[in-house]
This record gives sequence, C-alpha cells and structure tokens, in this order.
Amino acid sequence: MSLRSGFARLLRKQADAALQVPKPGHSVALVGAPLSRGQKRRGVEHGPGAIRGAGLTQRLLGLGCRVYDFGDLNFTQVPNDELYNNLVKYPRSVGLASQVLADAVSGAVAAGHSCVTIGGDHSLALGAISGHTRQCPHLCVIWVDAHADINTPLTTQSGNLHGQPVSFLLRELQDKMPQLPGFSWLKPCLSAPDIVYIGLRDVDPAEYYILKNYDIQYFSMRDIDRLGIQKVMEKTFEHLMGRRQRPVHLSFDIDAFDPSLAPATGTPVLGGLTYREGMYIAEEIHNTGMLSAIDLVEVNPLLGASQEEVKATASLAVDVIATCFGQTREGAHTVFDELPTPSSPDESESEEQVRI
Amino acid sequence: MSLRSGFARLLRKQADAALQVPKPGHSVALVGAPLSRGQKRRGVEHGPGAIRGAGLTQRLLGLGCRVYDFGDLNFTQVPNDELYNNLVKYPRSVGLASQVLADAVSGAVAAGHSCVTIGGDHSLALGAISGHTRQCPHLCVIWVDAHADINTPLTTQSGNLHGQPVSFLLRELQDKMPQLPGFSWLKPCLSAPDIVYIGLRDVDPAEYYILKNYDIQYFSMRDIDRLGIQKVMEKTFEHLMGRRQRPVHLSFDIDAFDPSLAPATGTPVLGGLTYREGMYIAEEIHNTGMLSAIDLVEVNPLLGASQEEVKATASLAVDVIATCFGQTREGAHTVFDELPTPSSPDESESEEQVRI
Amino acid sequence: MSLRSGFARLLRKQADAALQVPKPGHSVALVGAPLSRGQKRRGVEHGPGAIRGAGLTQRLLGLGCRVYDFGDLNFTQVPNDELYNNLVKYPRSVGLASQVLADAVSGAVAAGHSCVTIGGDHSLALGAISGHTRQCPHLCVIWVDAHADINTPLTTQSGNLHGQPVSFLLRELQDKMPQLPGFSWLKPCLSAPDIVYIGLRDVDPAEYYILKNYDIQYFSMRDIDRLGIQKVMEKTFEHLMGRRQRPVHLSFDIDAFDPSLAPATGTPVLGGLTYREGMYIAEEIHNTGMLSAIDLVEVNPLLGASQEEVKATASLAVDVIATCFGQTREGAHTVFDELPTPSSPDESESEEQVRI
Repeated sequence: MSLRSGFARLLRKQADAALQVPKPGHSVALVGAPLSRGQKRRGVEHGPGAIRGAGLTQRLLGLGCRVYDFGDLNFTQVPNDELYNNLVKYPRSVGLASQVLADAVSGAVAAGHSCVTIGGDHSLALGAISGHTRQCPHLCVIWVDAHADINTPLTTQSGNLHGQPVSFLLRELQDKMPQLPGFSWLKPCLSAPDIVYIGLRDVDPAEYYILKNYDIQYFSMRDIDRLGIQKVMEKTFEHLMGRRQRPVHLSFDIDAFDPSLAPATGTPVLGGLTYREGMYIAEEIHNTGMLSAIDLVEVNPLLGASQEEVKATASLAVDVIATCFGQTREGAHTVFDELPTPSSPDESESEEQVRI
Repeated sequence: MSLRSGFARLLRKQADAALQVPKPGHSVALVGAPLSRGQKRRGVEHGPGAIRGAGLTQRLLGLGCRVYDFGDLNFTQVPNDELYNNLVKYPRSVGLASQVLADAVSGAVAAGHSCVTIGGDHSLALGAISGHTRQCPHLCVIWVDAHADINTPLTTQSGNLHGQPVSFLLRELQDKMPQLPGFSWLKPCLSAPDIVYIGLRDVDPAEYYILKNYDIQYFSMRDIDRLGIQKVMEKTFEHLMGRRQRPVHLSFDIDAFDPSLAPATGTPVLGGLTYREGMYIAEEIHNTGMLSAIDLVEVNPLLGASQEEVKATASLAVDVIATCFGQTREGAHTVFDELPTPSSPDESESEEQVRI
Repeated sequence: MSLRSGFARLLRKQADAALQVPKPGHSVALVGAPLSRGQKRRGVEHGPGAIRGAGLTQRLLGLGCRVYDFGDLNFTQVPNDELYNNLVKYPRSVGLASQVLADAVSGAVAAGHSCVTIGGDHSLALGAISGHTRQCPHLCVIWVDAHADINTPLTTQSGNLHGQPVSFLLRELQDKMPQLPGFSWLKPCLSAPDIVYIGLRDVDPAEYYILKNYDIQYFSMRDIDRLGIQKVMEKTFEHLMGRRQRPVHLSFDIDAFDPSLAPATGTPVLGGLTYREGMYIAEEIHNTGMLSAIDLVEVNPLLGASQEEVKATASLAVDVIATCFGQTREGAHTVFDELPTPSSPDESESEEQVRI
C-alpha cells in the first residue's frame, strides 16, 4: 500500500537522521491516528488535531525531547463495510486502520523512537499494541480507562469496536473470538498477566466475567479509593515487572479522568481520576525508565459544552503525555548546574536616593 | 386515619404478592415522603418526584430488585400549628407526618421489603427510624450528613426540626427533651452507641457538647481527611457490629456530598464527600448484607442554579440508593455464566475482498 | 515617616487597651498590605478589601477573638523605580513597602497580637517575616504555595519580585544575592531548616536546584498524593518543631488551592490543594498552639471570571484564616457548658387537639 510504504520510508529517513545526533533526551515519534469507526459519535477523528493544538510538540521539546511528528495516518474507509453478526460496526475499516497503525508503531519503535499515538477512538490500541509487540515481544500494558474494553464481538451489547480491542490481543481469549472480516492479519500477542487496568468504573457483566475468570489484574476506582493511588502504582509495577524490567505500553483513555476534568469525550463516567492521580500515574510510569509507547485516545473536540471544555480536555491529554516524558510537579524538568553570584558588591545602585 | 389504613392495606396486599414469588434479588419498597415543614426553604417536598424522575425504579430493576413504589405519603398540614416555645416551627405538622411515615416504614419492613424513604427534609428520619425499630429493635443507624441534626428543641437556634431529629430518638437525651405538641406518639428507640455519623462539618456548639458528652461516634470530614474513607467505614462497622450483625438503617442527607456535586439542597456546606467517597460508603453498606432501610433526604429541586444542577443532585441520590442495592463500579451487577464461543470457524465472511 | 509612626502610635494605643482586658481568645491584628508591585497583574492591591468584604472580622469575632483592624498600610510608589539588572521590576517600591510592613508586623506582635497580613502579592512576605523575626527570632515558617518563590534576582526569568521573597530571607543564599536598591534595610533572618513548603507544583529549574542544594524541606503535590495530607503535616511539625516548640509564621498563597476553588488569583496552576486539605493544614497549625502570624496573599478580585468566583476565592481566604484561629469542622468553636432541661413536664401544650 503506497501510503504505508511512503510512511515507512519517511520514518526510516527521519530515524536515520535522529540516530546521527547525540541523545540529550527521548526521541519521540508522534503518530496521529484519526480513527473514529470504533464508536458512533462524530468528532473523535479530530482528537489528534486538538491535542497538537494544545501544544504537545512544544511541551515535549521543552523537556529536551527530540520530536518527530509524522502527521496523521490516512485511514481508508472500506466501502460496503457491513455489520458483522448484525451488530459489530465497521469491522473492515477498523481492522484495516489498525493494520496501518500497527505498521507505523512498529516502524517508529524499530527506529529507536518512543511512539506516541494520538487518537482517535480506543479501538486503535489493538493496532498500536500489536505493532509494538513486533519490536518488543515482552512488553507489558498499563491500560488506564473507565472501561475495560474487553468485550468480545460475541458479548458486545453496543457493537462498537472501541469496547473490544483487548479481546483481540489476549491469547487466552482466542477460542472465544470469531474471525472478523478485516482482522485476519492480527495475531494475539498478549497474555492475561501482561496487562493491568487502572481506573475502571463501568464494566459490563461479560467483561467482569473475563477479568475474573482469566485472572486479569485491575484496579477499579473503588480499589483506588481503598488503597490510594500510590499503592495502586506500586502493585501495578510489582505485578508487571516484579521479576524483570519490561518495556511499557501505556494505553490511556482520557475518560479515565473525571468528567469534570475531561468533558470532551464520548463515554464519560462519573467518579473518575483526579488531575493529581492522573499525573501521579504518569510520573510513576516515567520513573520506571521503561516507557516505550503511549496511546492517548478518545479526546473528542465536538463533545465539549464549550471551547474551554475542549481545551481543558486536550490540555489534560498533553499533561499526561508530557509527564510520561519527564515533566514533574516538583521541578527539575531541565538541568540547572550552578547559582549565579553577584559580580561585584557595588552591582546595585546607591540606595540613598530612594529613602524618603 | 383513612389514608394510613388505606396505605397499610395496599402494602399488605403487595407484600403478600411479593412473598409468593421466588426472591432473585432484594424486594424494595419505595415510600415518597414529601415533608418540608422541618425547614424553611420551599421545594424539598418535590424531592421524591425529582429522585423518581432520575430513574430510581429502573435502576433498581436493572439490579434485579423487585420494586414496589407506594407513591407519596399524603402529609396533612395541621392548622394553627403555632411555634413551640416561640421558636420551634410546625411541631404538630412534622410530628404527625413522622407518625404516618413511621407506620409506613414499619409496615414495609414487616412485609419483607427493604424500605427506601425518599424525602423530603431530614426531620422525617425520626419517623422512619422509629417505624423501622418497631420491626428491628436492634437496628443500628449510619447517619451520613454535613450536620449532626441533634439539637434539642431547647438548644436549636433556627427552630427548624430538620436539625433535631436525632435528639428525639436517643434514650440518653430524654430528660433534656420537652414534650412537643405532635410528638406524644414517639418513644425514644436508640441508644448513643447505636448511631455513627459520617461527613460532619457544620456542628453547633450544643451539638458538639452532646456528641462528646454522650460518647457518640462520629467521623467528621476532618476524620475522613485524616483516616481515609476506607478506615472510616472499617471503624464504623467495628463500632456498630463488632459484637454481632445488626440490621442497618442508613439515613443519608444529600448535603453530605460536596456542594459542587449536590448543589440542589437547602443547607450546603463546603468541603463535603467526593462522589467516590459517597459510592464507597454505599458499597460498603451493601457489602455487609445487613441493609434494611434507607432515607435519602434534602434533595430540593427548586434550589439548583440550573436544570443540570437539579438533575445532577437527583441523579446522585439515585446512585447512592442503587449502590446500596448492589450497583458496583467494578461490574458484576448481574450474573454472567459463560462466554459465547464462535459457532464455526467459517462464521466470518471471506476477508479477501476488503484488502486493498 | 509620618505614616509609619502614626501607625505605630495607633498600634501601641490599641495594644495597651487590649492588654487591659482579660483574654478570652486570641487577640488578632489585621494589617492590610495592598502591595501589587511584586507582580504584573492589576488588581491584587484590592485583595485586602475583598477578604474583609468576605466577612473576616465577623468570623474572627464569632470565634471569640478580639480583632484590631489597622486598615491598609499606605504604600508609597517610589518614582523612577527603574528595573534592576534590566529585569527585576519595581525593586525600590517593593523594598520600601516591605520595610513599612516589617515595622507594622513587628509592632503588632510586640503588642501581643497574632498578626494577620492580608495581601497583596507574595513579595510582601519578606517584610512580614522579617518584621516578625524581630520579635520572635526563633520562629519557623510554613509556606503554602503552588510556587517556591525562591528565585534570586539573578535567576528570575520573569523579574517579578513575588517569585523571589524567600531568597532574601535565607542566610545560606546571601552570597548569591545582589544588593538590590530598596533592600538595604533587610537582613536575612531564616536558615534553610526553618522553612517547610507545602503544595508546590510549579518550580523553576533554579528553584529546584536551591531546594535540593540547600536541603530545604518541601512537600510538593506529588508528595501529598504519595503521603496524604495527614502525614505531610506530621512530618512538617516534626521537621520544624521536633526539638522544641517555636512560633509559627504561616505564609499562605491562595494559589496553593486548586484553580477550581481559587480562580481569582494571578498565577493559578492545575492540581492544587482541595478545600479539605487546605482546612486540614490550617486546623493542624491551630492545634499546635504556636501560630504567631499569617500572611494571606494573592487574592486578586479583578481576575475572577465572575463575581461568584471572586467571592469564592475571598471566602476561601477567610476560611483559612478563621480555621487558623480555631474554627473547626467538628464544632466546638465556642464553649457550651450544659444542656438546658425542660422546666416542667407540662411545658408543652396539650396535644389532643392536633390528633385527627
């Protein structure tokens, strides 16, 4: 496909350039993924634009990152993309877009970048994670979200694929998965112990059954209330990296935040993460030194009640990403070596004239 | 009184019907108590309508409850209901309404229901708890509120009875209680160790004196800040049920929540419960398996600054009640037994046509 | 200077009067410090008026304090107050105003008052703390703020003196401080172990360098997230008063609170203190019994988006101050000695007439 190979060429060229310069900070690839067919509300395809508009690149540059923005992927809508099983919507379009994204993420990571995918709806995570595993087969996933997104095409009530991406990825679920049109390229690449959820508060009965039956580690909002975010992160890393360090794929749905903070999103649920909890999660992930890729999804600029709400939501997305790359609340974003000293004792003017 | 006996007949009939069916979930009686004479602001009598309008019955049905909505009690306003002691307002009207409600709650519990009283102002709790104790003399009370509502008619500054209901119920306070017109039917039915407060942050000097002097257990917002909500609930149950399991009466004033969450109420106080803390309290009470009755009071639809604020407040009330009956943030509201498996390997269509 | 000596006379007179009455509660001096030259946004000079307008005096009187409001200090703007080093703004005006304030605070504390300075921008703290140390050389400082305000005139990026006051006060930094016009009166009066920061979340690289290099104790928002506010206060007092009790100077920037609570301020930063955390800090400081002076700064009535936002911000300032002087969330603001008892069993009217 011309688009993909064009993208791959561009990527390689940029990556080569990147490799020739010394590395003061992270090398970050930005990939816009304006996917919207995994859900039904218009506007989430403008998420990448809103997040860029909130100053993502500048913020990352300010942190000493080198940033390569590859623009938005061009997702073809497949014609005659009929319902699967009279229910699941746009399987071919979502499947194809995910395939394109998988190639892009794989290429970006292969070129030495940390890959930031800005969405777009959360169905894109199946492509991003799948592509990421091609380069890092032992990665682990931290999935921050109000929802578990782990329905199978046979348990979904809504038919929206953004509620199902995890089911496509888990090896343990493969005998429960029908062969969806558009997904033949996809091989399951995660096992249940490789993923931890944080922030769940709206889980369907089938999803709950899967979480419990396949022993998937999750921290619901209730768990955060009970344990505190500090303990939750501690347990997350113990679960995922107790035995060995592994690359981290962070898949962050903006609806993990409370709707008062992130109103411009498609499926808000009351009682979400505070700003401070969100930053804490990102700070802790940065502190592992193992972050390899991020998806930041479900910012929908058409859904805010006002321009302020849209900006606040997009700006929150930027804060999450920037914090993942080293922005901190206690300073030390950049190095400072020595305090300046006054050059001479008479540097100041005579003060007498100002006494009254 | 014809109204009361009519209600009692209806209740018995419904209860008999209920007893003949198997019990998949809770059997819940809804009793609307549009009492407003315990305070001075118009509108709280529309609380039951607002809470019903926010979908209470549907939510409980969705949780597998059987719901019997007995409509609103018809509270007669007593004519010439003069101030007691030149201060306490509408004693006869509040006393009579409480008596009617006591009969209704007693009847509902006797018929095997969990009784949900939707108010109305908080003075109704003296009726609800009094009626409940007729069936469950050993019950305990969890009183979630910004205020202690434990002034006596001789210590109240405002004269509003919604700030006094607990004083009527406590045996230890009876030598401090004058005989109010309208309350001769009421016998004190709780002892100080039977009640725990959660959420206090606006306590009058006399109330503080009572709490301290009669050794009443309370957790102010400061205590929640200090201990965390998890520990507060642990200590609450230890205090109330450390020796034996007992039926729980939850008396929940919506003003326990922060005014940013529950603005449509008469006496909001800054610094209240978060949404998550409120849900945690309700989840923990559900988890005891001992919940027997709830009062949900002080939703006043005339006090929101906008229709959104009224809806948010009423919806919060529904969330509290639904969570008390099993709604959870981590799923598992209903039973799910087995994941569906694809019927055949060729269930999916050929995918070739969609590759580009 | 006539103004200052007039103020001193008035102060002495009032203080003498105060000393002649018995002391039921705190004796509080209110000093308005409409300083605005430490930063660039118009309006913070109206902070004292807004805080008074939110009912500060009444609240303190209600807590049993004796309140002496000395009105607003009259800060002269020094003519031809040119930039220092082509960057630092209004050094002579800020220096002179701080000198005036130092005298006022010193006088108020000498006269036996707890001194409440209401600002005005945070550069005034260098005057307030400096004046306070004249009377209490062993005081300690709790600095509650989103910012560390510890740039030196040689590290500041903005040139605003409200971002630098702490650097003028610390003995350890004096070899890094140029002699600024307007500041020859000022002697450093604190050592690094005498100050603890709470609430930091926007710290410049040079400030971070200073905090770390001079071993200054701080609790950023991340630390509060990690430890909880209860532990933070415990560690604060352990650090400052582990060996001996010392007078406390609380320097509270309203921007320590989250912008959703305190929008009317010049440099808001997301992710601040909750209302409850702010109250908890003030309660704990009150509970030490060692509070000697407060600065409450950076309320800017021209910056709220609405009159409600301005009122909320000013009212929050009043809540902090009142809580520092004994307002509590669990009652007991004032003493209550005995519950009234009904005078006779027939105090109540006959009830028969109201039964239906």
